[in-house]
Amino acid sequence: MLPQQIHLTLPPWLGEVADSSRRYHSDEERVGLAIALSRHNAGPGGGGPFGAAVFDGEGRLISAGVNRVIPQNCSVAHAEMMAYMAAQQRLQRFRLNEGGGRYTLATSAQPCCQCFGATVWAGIDELLIGARGEDVETLTAFDEGPLPADWIGELSRRGIAVRRDIMRDEARAVLAAYGATGPHY
Amino acid sequence: MLPQQIHLTLPPWLGEVADSSRRYHSDEERVGLAIALSRHNAGPGGGGPFGAAVFDGEGRLISAGVNRVIPQNCSVAHAEMMAYMAAQQRLQRFRLNEGGGRYTLATSAQPCCQCFGATVWAGIDELLIGARGEDVETLTAFDEGPLPADWIGELSRRGIAVRRDIMRDEARAVLAAYGATGPHY
Repeated sequence: MLPQQIHLTLPPWLGEVADSSRRYHSDEERVGLAIALSRHNAGPGGGGPFGAAVFDGEGRLISAGVNRVIPQNCSVAHAEMMAYMAAQQRLQRFRLNEGGGRYTLATSAQPCCQCFGATVWAGIDELLIGARGEDVETLTAFDEGPLPADWIGELSRRGIAVRRDIMRDEARAVLAAYGATGPHY
Repeated sequence: MLPQQIHLTLPPWLGEVADSSRRYHSDEERVGLAIALSRHNAGPGGGGPFGAAVFDGEGRLISAGVNRVIPQNCSVAHAEMMAYMAAQQRLQRFRLNEGGGRYTLATSAQPCCQCFGATVWAGIDELLIGARGEDVETLTAFDEGPLPADWIGELSRRGIAVRRDIMRDEARAVLAAYGATGPHY
């Protein structure tokens, strides 16, 4: 029998780290949440040191995601992908900003080649990044994969503003701690 | 409440088009199935003219996917992504070829920027493509997004052989028919 259902879950502690009752206004608050998610997800049984979250223009938290590749046996389940899918499911539209609002993805580390491509279609206006790709690759064994040479320009030309190095030191610290102890699976 | 579950489905007719009891040995049989899936998915209520399937080294069909972006409100749910997630879930590993077998993705049309990136991580050895990206963009309103300049070389250097133009005319015919009548939603 061919599989006809895909079911992915986020960890039960998500709501303990991400507070959907408050507003996240600044870039630092938004990436700070993504980094807090990455830190929690780096522990035993987690999917590694990556977190992401989608916010609307008023700073409301729409969704939070962490890497679930290992626990869910799914190479698609990166933090950014989980956050996009959860936000689209919640708002019931496949392009988040199609209704006219503005949406932001904040991520603890630079999106890999898969999450870069997903960002083109997800309907966000702004991408906020903590650690750089080179931080991921030098501090951990993870690989970012092949990106277009001018990936920031490609997003910018499609109306997606990219800001990076937001709380980069804090994001790097999570990666470094994970890289020093190795994966926990 | 933050979403903690992602649930995606494939259409009920999947097993009528994809026959998991037979073997698909040649490139043409494999891409032929992806094109048949794309044709069925192009109809009313479907997600558009895109299909894909994962095969093992003996020609067994492991999973089949079609584009479910519109019906599932999910920009991630491209045919290739659905096929990868379904195959990984069935085999219970996040890199299909980690157990030593060889795996192939056949797709009716060149992967977009998101599916290109996902292909880097999915654990396949071979990517078989029907229509080219330029066919998609000239025959329909769909966009392939920004790829690395040498995307075939990037995959090849990671051990993924790319063969394209397999049954390209048949794949183009499905795209052309869809492009002529427009999306059915």
